Amino acid sequence: MPVGPLKTIVKVDLTKDAGKEPYLHNRWHPDIPSYATIKNNETVKIECVDWTGGQIGNNDSADDVRDIDLTRIHYLSGPFEIETAEPGDVLVVEIQDVQPMQDQPWGFTGIFSRENGGGFLDEIYPKPAKAIWDFEGINCSSRHIPGVRFAGLIHPGILGCAPSHEVLKTWNDREGQLISECSHMNRVVAEPPQPVNVHAGTGADDVKEKVGKEGARTIPGRPEHGGNCDIKNLSRGSKVYLPVHVPGAKFSVGDLHFSQGDGEISFCGAIEMAGVITIKFSVMKGGVKHLEMKSPIYIPGPVEPQFGPGRYIYFEGFSVDEHGKQHYLDTTVAYRQTSLRVIEYLRRYGYNDYQIYLLLSCAPIQGHVAGIVDIPNACTTMGLPIDIFDFDIRPEAPTDKRELGSCAFASS
Amino acid sequence: MPVGPLKTIVKVDLTKDAGKEPYLHNRWHPDIPSYATIKNNETVKIECVDWTGGQIGNNDSADDVRDIDLTRIHYLSGPFEIETAEPGDVLVVEIQDVQPMQDQPWGFTGIFSRENGGGFLDEIYPKPAKAIWDFEGINCSSRHIPGVRFAGLIHPGILGCAPSHEVLKTWNDREGQLISECSHMNRVVAEPPQPVNVHAGTGADDVKEKVGKEGARTIPGRPEHGGNCDIKNLSRGSKVYLPVHVPGAKFSVGDLHFSQGDGEISFCGAIEMAGVITIKFSVMKGGVKHLEMKSPIYIPGPVEPQFGPGRYIYFEGFSVDEHGKQHYLDTTVAYRQTSLRVIEYLRRYGYNDYQIYLLLSCAPIQGHVAGIVDIPNACTTMGLPIDIFDFDIRPEAPTDKRELGSCAFASS
Amino acid sequence: MPVGPLKTIVKVDLTKDAGKEPYLHNRWHPDIPSYATIKNNETVKIECVDWTGGQIGNNDSADDVRDIDLTRIHYLSGPFEIETAEPGDVLVVEIQDVQPMQDQPWGFTGIFSRENGGGFLDEIYPKPAKAIWDFEGINCSSRHIPGVRFAGLIHPGILGCAPSHEVLKTWNDREGQLISECSHMNRVVAEPPQPVNVHAGTGADDVKEKVGKEGARTIPGRPEHGGNCDIKNLSRGSKVYLPVHVPGAKFSVGDLHFSQGDGEISFCGAIEMAGVITIKFSVMKGGVKHLEMKSPIYIPGPVEPQFGPGRYIYFEGFSVDEHGKQHYLDTTVAYRQTSLRVIEYLRRYGYNDYQIYLLLSCAPIQGHVAGIVDIPNACTTMGLPIDIFDFDIRPEAPTDKRELGSCAFASS
Amino acid sequence: MPVGPLKTIVKVDLTKDAGKEPYLHNRWHPDIPSYATIKNNETVKIECVDWTGGQIGNNDSADDVRDIDLTRIHYLSGPFEIETAEPGDVLVVEIQDVQPMQDQPWGFTGIFSRENGGGFLDEIYPKPAKAIWDFEGINCSSRHIPGVRFAGLIHPGILGCAPSHEVLKTWNDREGQLISECSHMNRVVAEPPQPVNVHAGTGADDVKEKVGKEGARTIPGRPEHGGNCDIKNLSRGSKVYLPVHVPGAKFSVGDLHFSQGDGEISFCGAIEMAGVITIKFSVMKGGVKHLEMKSPIYIPGPVEPQFGPGRYIYFEGFSVDEHGKQHYLDTTVAYRQTSLRVIEYLRRYGYNDYQIYLLLSCAPIQGHVAGIVDIPNACTTMGLPIDIFDFDIRPEAPTDKRELGSCAFASS
Repeated sequence: MPVGPLKTIVKVDLTKDAGKEPYLHNRWHPDIPSYATIKNNETVKIECVDWTGGQIGNNDSADDVRDIDLTRIHYLSGPFEIETAEPGDVLVVEIQDVQPMQDQPWGFTGIFSRENGGGFLDEIYPKPAKAIWDFEGINCSSRHIPGVRFAGLIHPGILGCAPSHEVLKTWNDREGQLISECSHMNRVVAEPPQPVNVHAGTGADDVKEKVGKEGARTIPGRPEHGGNCDIKNLSRGSKVYLPVHVPGAKFSVGDLHFSQGDGEISFCGAIEMAGVITIKFSVMKGGVKHLEMKSPIYIPGPVEPQFGPGRYIYFEGFSVDEHGKQHYLDTTVAYRQTSLRVIEYLRRYGYNDYQIYLLLSCAPIQGHVAGIVDIPNACTTMGLPIDIFDFDIRPEAPTDKRELGSCAFASS
Repeated sequence: MPVGPLKTIVKVDLTKDAGKEPYLHNRWHPDIPSYATIKNNETVKIECVDWTGGQIGNNDSADDVRDIDLTRIHYLSGPFEIETAEPGDVLVVEIQDVQPMQDQPWGFTGIFSRENGGGFLDEIYPKPAKAIWDFEGINCSSRHIPGVRFAGLIHPGILGCAPSHEVLKTWNDREGQLISECSHMNRVVAEPPQPVNVHAGTGADDVKEKVGKEGARTIPGRPEHGGNCDIKNLSRGSKVYLPVHVPGAKFSVGDLHFSQGDGEISFCGAIEMAGVITIKFSVMKGGVKHLEMKSPIYIPGPVEPQFGPGRYIYFEGFSVDEHGKQHYLDTTVAYRQTSLRVIEYLRRYGYNDYQIYLLLSCAPIQGHVAGIVDIPNACTTMGLPIDIFDFDIRPEAPTDKRELGSCAFASS
Repeated sequence: MPVGPLKTIVKVDLTKDAGKEPYLHNRWHPDIPSYATIKNNETVKIECVDWTGGQIGNNDSADDVRDIDLTRIHYLSGPFEIETAEPGDVLVVEIQDVQPMQDQPWGFTGIFSRENGGGFLDEIYPKPAKAIWDFEGINCSSRHIPGVRFAGLIHPGILGCAPSHEVLKTWNDREGQLISECSHMNRVVAEPPQPVNVHAGTGADDVKEKVGKEGARTIPGRPEHGGNCDIKNLSRGSKVYLPVHVPGAKFSVGDLHFSQGDGEISFCGAIEMAGVITIKFSVMKGGVKHLEMKSPIYIPGPVEPQFGPGRYIYFEGFSVDEHGKQHYLDTTVAYRQTSLRVIEYLRRYGYNDYQIYLLLSCAPIQGHVAGIVDIPNACTTMGLPIDIFDFDIRPEAPTDKRELGSCAFASS
Repeated sequence: MPVGPLKTIVKVDLTKDAGKEPYLHNRWHPDIPSYATIKNNETVKIECVDWTGGQIGNNDSADDVRDIDLTRIHYLSGPFEIETAEPGDVLVVEIQDVQPMQDQPWGFTGIFSRENGGGFLDEIYPKPAKAIWDFEGINCSSRHIPGVRFAGLIHPGILGCAPSHEVLKTWNDREGQLISECSHMNRVVAEPPQPVNVHAGTGADDVKEKVGKEGARTIPGRPEHGGNCDIKNLSRGSKVYLPVHVPGAKFSVGDLHFSQGDGEISFCGAIEMAGVITIKFSVMKGGVKHLEMKSPIYIPGPVEPQFGPGRYIYFEGFSVDEHGKQHYLDTTVAYRQTSLRVIEYLRRYGYNDYQIYLLLSCAPIQGHVAGIVDIPNACTTMGLPIDIFDFDIRPEAPTDKRELGSCAFASS
């Protein structure tokens, strides 16, 4: 019996306001109604808007990045009810493919203003900036970062099942506690529930109100369900195992990335895009107990771009910050230093720092925890693929300054 | 003109006291005299003792691990003067091979007692434990952790050039400041200079006294020179670029590992061994400026064990600790959680937790920084190679408890 | 300046007769008019029909394979004039992507009847047979060969530039000579020009007649231009360098494959499909001389499915045929024997031989020339990826016969 | 219980005449007595002389290659009796390591004179030539072929179990028939038994005489047992499954290679060396029936040098020979043409043809059967790793002639 073409269960309209489309939502909450139902073992296509719902344009100014409204983000497609899934089961999500929209073969990488979103290096690079990437099949290149071209490790930034009420309460409690404990820090440390611009899918007004008050924000990934993990390797052919917390699982997906580096350091750091993801869903009954699962696990697919181990330059960083201060086994500090080492290295060729910061966020950079026990220094490494550059970046090669243009900046 | 066999520039005698051999030392200090001279572009073999200088035995008790004297560790071979190397140059170290001692084809992985050394998970696993590994060519297996066997990603845990007096002062100052700032923490946060059991190579008494008072301890890797980075990928065929701080570079190497996982989480976590490393040295004149180098960089070799991307199970961890407390973008907490997830998963097959803790420390585990900007959660991943096990550990496989013995524990 | 979506330079209509569409042709001849013009450095999408022009159906009978009309095959899209290309140049073809038709996510693998087309093992397996493959994103599976599923190494079977009149004459002469020399062999050894069902694109009647009389058949690849090389690795991201023989190059492409094994042994052995290929064209002026090029070269792309070297079982075959006869360094005989060894091995699980023959033709099998000088035996090897099976095929595993259905056969 | 160092079951003395040492032999015959006994599941080290038994020197003349005595070759270490092995079993040979002799870190690649041995391209390159390779750990380089350096894919050229009398008779019959059928060809097509310089290990005179008369020569690999397969991938960590034909298996091994390309085209084409191989032996009872095994199979190890798919240039060749003659699906002709294409390509940099011929024989070249059904042309490909060269050989790079010296030639 011939099998027909796959069903597209969500078709997005990029000309519409993402905040109002019934197949989207932007909070995690168990009461958001399922938009559609998918059979156990069924494969479907799901279209997704880009994570900003279209706020960023294909142009040469970062004004849109500067002015982005962060209450209007992370519109996810779904939730989908998966037949037979019950709390305690594991939902197995096989990512059969991810593609950009046929008619919109481009994406963007942004550095948010320190005042509006920020990023991993915002104390050093506080200005908004942007790069537009053009897609040609599996490859991408940018008029804002000349000299590089690479195959995308295409993946969704966000996927997960809805939390139960109990899980949701845990999230709100513990993040609330962090916020109250960190009031002395001069920065936003977590995002509490926020009714402004809440989108609860097809939920009626009372649901919407409730979701606005209680619904978990989508920014952090969370151990209980995954969510916004931004794991670059959830690409074509990978398999993700997600715990189910509510009847029917209520699975959602979005924030598609054409490519991303480990850490996604500039926050809007992947090559963000609208697109379509093809997923096969299957339910592993009792899987949470069977796998003793507290957080998702995954198995990468076989078609990740391969450069060969000897085609990476690895940079080392330690938990001594840029002011010379020693931190105690602080891996976050170490990874920030590692990033800075790559910026210093690539700057020699004529890139400006913001171009490199953008590039490290979105190119297939390997970020490793190397040593995490040699007190007081954690050591992390960052592997930069040599072959994404069209000139020779190996240490032995000359470093004649090149004309490498600029990324997009804001008008003020 | 035929080329003869390579010169072995240091030959160790494993029956002697490492604390007295002239070719060894255990501090970083510019005044430790060079033990020998190596030409620019020369390749030599260098033998190394294991990092404890022979304190750990091939037996089934962890008493030796419990009682280890941590003032008598990290005996490094060297220092070596590299001809023509001057401050500002980069020393290029090509690792042509690393081999265990022919007559001592075994190594050990230890978990230190929380009271004596500790490790990444010592709050949860405070007891000393040990696994002995037998080498058969490129492969290793352990009577203390049955069911696994893998090819070593063999490498030195420590290599670097001597600090200048100025660099040394920086180290001592900043680590001293950390110690004084962290006096409230109930743990050792850094190791200041320590005269007890100092070994200054061939240095006379006055040098030895000075090195004891000022010499940097070898435990942490440090940004200015590398040192104890414990980077698992500095294996056969890799190339490391090290900044030179003193005339002649004064290069030292030691702490050889038959294998290690990213993070080396149990601290004595690699498969520690005595062995021989073959290195080609060459000097890149003015390399520090040319590469804008603040920390070492490296390029891995082509013969790393390859499992295929789809032959890893990846576990996710977030900066929510085991008590449910939310931390702010704390990658160290996230990586600890990731480790615990793997322990929970593998425990189902019949291993005890200490066996798994040892295994994650020494097997070729991939530890990645996945997302580091999605406040408040950093997300890290740990990739466990499926093919090192002789049974099927994939999520879909059954998990019949197996008879998997035990690692070595201490007698009390 | 934003770049728009890529141009689709040929759009095929699968409901039409391929033998009459102006954008197709089925011979190599310099006089076939260019269908369209492509700029130097332009990237375009080109749709292609399957190589049989739609003769094979998505059903469970091999009657269509048995009855295939081999004069109506290899409809290629093109020819395309590439601006600035001249004889002596090299046309650089970067394959940015290959995709099946969105609405026709399936393909077929056929074994032709020995009486009508035949194949590599037709003396042993003379019957027609067929397998239909369903595509789910990058993966494929077949109701006719249960137990396997794999990511496609998707590629065009045929691409090349038109021959000059001189090159064409060389082809016709040397293949004609072979035919006349081999009249004693009881089989078709080459296909001379054939006016029946010739399709010369937009060529007028006189051109069509000439092409029918002189045009080279598309079945063999040929050293001077490539053509039907059936090289499985010309996949996403690869770069092919083709010699140009006529002004404008007159490039054609077709015979898309979702996947293929080295050798494509069953002749219709890839997973044949209609689809769309995205190509960037650029002209290397004087490239034939620069590269001393007599035959095409290529560089594979970075996203080939990777299984890890230890995830293949390799079978060996030698130039002793199945009747026990010794041949002299005959690599073709050796490769046939290697194929038979794999059939014998996989048969143990319950597959019938035709299923395996089909599988070896289309799965990503690695076929190597191992030793070709140890008289009288050439030795070839065939690497079978372990991970395309959903059961354990390693030698150590048990071989309980399974219910593995059957491929499609003909009704008589 | 600690495990001691591995047993070295054969220690060779390179200063002695290989033709007389009791642990060597140079024919396949069931009556050659076992030299030693190895337990089932035991791992041992076995030293081997180079395949010529020391006839080739580390010098700059190919006189020794020209004058080689081909009756004095392929001295194998063994035979070894493997306890419990019986006919019908499969001997599983796990290659744990292969190393060159510590004190003899060099090897050679030879092109034999067309009059004395010949090789794959001897009609075009009839002269003797030689390259000496120096080993530095895993890497090798040659004063005779400057500009290249690579990690060895180290392996034994020959391994196998002794034939039974029945198998031996089959070999002698079928190769004898080939010789008689090919008397018209102007070349040696197979080597019949040869009493001159026969070495039957510890066999007494009567055994030696019998082995001289009947013993199979070691040059060809043979389907029934493997033997001289020259498969480059039987490297560290690989597992070979060999059919057992006589009680105790009588396993032999030799002809160690530091590296080899697919095809080993120059016949003495690997980097030939003396060395030591570490093997774990285990017996799979009834394995021949279980695996339906007619020829050996193997699974490669995980540490093969990895260059990444995009770091090869692939050359295509077809079954049209260098005189323009069309052959019918002749893969051997196609592979010869493929080799010639690489020679033409590399010649542009300043190498002489013999240097390239040597290099293609011994470097880790990938030789693939690409298409073998598109009558009349078989198509083969040869993948040349870009990263073994210290200059840029990609098609886009300039090809300034370089000073690349010469291989060694004979004095006349």
